[in-house]
Amino acid sequence: MRAEVITIGDEILIGQIVDTNSAWMARQLNNIGIKIKQISSVSDDRQHILNALVEAASRADIILITGGLGPTKDDITKNTLAEYFNVALVENAETLANVTRIFAKSNRPMLDINKAQALVPQNCEVLINHNGTAPGMWFESDGKIYVSMPGVPFEMMYLMDEQVIPRLKTAFKLPEIIHKTMLTAGEGESFLAIRIADIEDRLPEHVKLAYLPKLGQVRLRLSAYDGGTANLEQEINMFAAEIAERVSDVLVATEDVTLEKAVLNVMESKGLTLSVAESCTGGYIAHLLTQHAGSSKVFAGGAVTYSNTLKQQILGVQRQTLDVYGAVSEETVKEMLNGALKNFNTNFAIAVTGIAGPDGGSADKPVGTVWIAVGSIEKKLVKKFTFGSKRLQNIERSAAGALAMLNTLLKDVDK
Amino acid sequence: MRAEVITIGDEILIGQIVDTNSAWMARQLNNIGIKIKQISSVSDDRQHILNALVEAASRADIILITGGLGPTKDDITKNTLAEYFNVALVENAETLANVTRIFAKSNRPMLDINKAQALVPQNCEVLINHNGTAPGMWFESDGKIYVSMPGVPFEMMYLMDEQVIPRLKTAFKLPEIIHKTMLTAGEGESFLAIRIADIEDRLPEHVKLAYLPKLGQVRLRLSAYDGGTANLEQEINMFAAEIAERVSDVLVATEDVTLEKAVLNVMESKGLTLSVAESCTGGYIAHLLTQHAGSSKVFAGGAVTYSNTLKQQILGVQRQTLDVYGAVSEETVKEMLNGALKNFNTNFAIAVTGIAGPDGGSADKPVGTVWIAVGSIEKKLVKKFTFGSKRLQNIERSAAGALAMLNTLLKDVDK
Repeated sequence: MRAEVITIGDEILIGQIVDTNSAWMARQLNNIGIKIKQISSVSDDRQHILNALVEAASRADIILITGGLGPTKDDITKNTLAEYFNVALVENAETLANVTRIFAKSNRPMLDINKAQALVPQNCEVLINHNGTAPGMWFESDGKIYVSMPGVPFEMMYLMDEQVIPRLKTAFKLPEIIHKTMLTAGEGESFLAIRIADIEDRLPEHVKLAYLPKLGQVRLRLSAYDGGTANLEQEINMFAAEIAERVSDVLVATEDVTLEKAVLNVMESKGLTLSVAESCTGGYIAHLLTQHAGSSKVFAGGAVTYSNTLKQQILGVQRQTLDVYGAVSEETVKEMLNGALKNFNTNFAIAVTGIAGPDGGSADKPVGTVWIAVGSIEKKLVKKFTFGSKRLQNIERSAAGALAMLNTLLKDVDK
Repeated sequence: MRAEVITIGDEILIGQIVDTNSAWMARQLNNIGIKIKQISSVSDDRQHILNALVEAASRADIILITGGLGPTKDDITKNTLAEYFNVALVENAETLANVTRIFAKSNRPMLDINKAQALVPQNCEVLINHNGTAPGMWFESDGKIYVSMPGVPFEMMYLMDEQVIPRLKTAFKLPEIIHKTMLTAGEGESFLAIRIADIEDRLPEHVKLAYLPKLGQVRLRLSAYDGGTANLEQEINMFAAEIAERVSDVLVATEDVTLEKAVLNVMESKGLTLSVAESCTGGYIAHLLTQHAGSSKVFAGGAVTYSNTLKQQILGVQRQTLDVYGAVSEETVKEMLNGALKNFNTNFAIAVTGIAGPDGGSADKPVGTVWIAVGSIEKKLVKKFTFGSKRLQNIERSAAGALAMLNTLLKDVDK
């Protein structure tokens, strides 16, 4: 069963908004075993929408359309759908009641432009939108299903969850599809590929392995498509377990999770706390951790010591160390780590100092030179990295490197 | 001049990643006057990529392709491009040297799989990727330009900035478009619109004003399209100056710059230093500031005091204040600010404490309650905000709120 997504709206094509709807819809469809063949973002243009509908219908059985439904005059999706199906627009009583109710609730006068939202193509079944005035529309034509939804994310999500997904499950007998994702950090894509080449070679036709790299991390995703096998889940778990064992030294998680969240999960389960002493990462590691709800159970906080003065003052780095070895040195990063462990009183700490660039490098210590120290009072890891010349990348790579080192150390900590 | 973007990769179609590349590319193209007609995300499938290329070429003059270039065997873009252009793959010496250099630098052995990255379709001009091993490829065929780039955002961005955009400018005689952007913070879109309505009404047909809102900030962008006017730049600057004067109290910058960078610029020009004391923003403000090269001239660092213990220890907040008023209170945020000014010895400091959510709220202090204090020894601003229920938005809004308050205070500081 194949689907396509068409998102309508100039705001995506001029880059004003990022299309997050499509990825969300793709995940929901995948969960019920529907593959998306193509996602197309097209302009608010009648002919362009018509062409996109014809192309999508030539490839897929289900066409989901978002955007281009609203009260303002630049929305032409509804008229174009009526033209595509060669039907008239008719007023839908239930939709009119919904629009009227929403305006009554907010005590605002209803305008003609809003009443017009109750006009829908004659051949559609209306999916009432309890979160907004633009209705969802369900069409069946020539053995294919078309669904049109507003582009406002929470309105679309409501219609998908409550109406579209349940209806699609009923309409089709769907093949099974299962994904299993593993997160690794600290080993490059091609080295991982070599380490698991023989396992990959043994994968049956209906099981696919994808490498999804991201600065300092690689996700390994196994996807099993219904191939008449008795138990897809058992099969995919078997391969996943084999891969996980093979790469256990760099394995962070056997689920689809961010690196920092995986580390937070492990630390929380082991009852450990964490603090940071950040120089060149400038608060980025703290930000990554505190993005996640519940991070305060593990993360106490820390210091962003951009200046040498603050390295001495908050972390107790010795003036002499900075003078003799410099701020970016093994000696300084060790003192930063010790200062964090002592002053912030956590089980583990992360310390990072480096030259993020683009300026500040020297022949001795070029831009991209980063020292990372991670550990507890009992056990520490200290490592020098040589990243590239791009500031943001150096910050991200340093954070991933530090978290990967922490992940390694945590493997030796009992619960 | 019309362009299309094709993104290749199953990870987008199964919703594992959100396609942020396309919006970024769209903005860059728009700046030089190129409109995107369609964005298509297709699977790692030879026939599907071929079809997408044919369709895109039927609508556009420039086809930008991202994704599907990497060392592992699931990448088929390069072979498919060779098939599309009916040419062979040949080894490119410059690319091989680049791959070799990257591996040498990181002291890792180069594998056959990596050497294969130097194979490119015979008819392409290679765009060397200094940030990764997969090269960019520039094709000219039947009067159209095709560019293939890796999907890793920073590699794509580098190639676009350094190579693709300058080459497109040269390849086409593009109509003149001039943009002038002003950044405001602390005033909503509709209120700004009312304040400048009469100026907007007086804009000539070929000058457009766009409101680009982002949590706590609104960018006002004037775009002047070549309309035969003698001096587009003079014309647009006149309107920009009029708008800037009208909204001067909430104006942050008269250029397209981020809020934090604008604040850094002002502080640097006035010779001022800054530190932070962050609780609910968890390092995000420090991260925003330190993303920017040269931020160390202004930003000394600070503390992320997630726990109450660290609020006392690093910032000197009184235990009694926390007990009586709570961590999220006017009294606590004031002590955090004073602690930062005193302990970090900077001219200005920012202190933030709040409930980012989704948990931790109460009837008295619901999720989204945030206290922000900003100031110097001489002058301080303290404000309570009530944001929403979304954690990440609350963090972003808090940061924008704090920086907007700092911007206001800085207006009264002489150079």
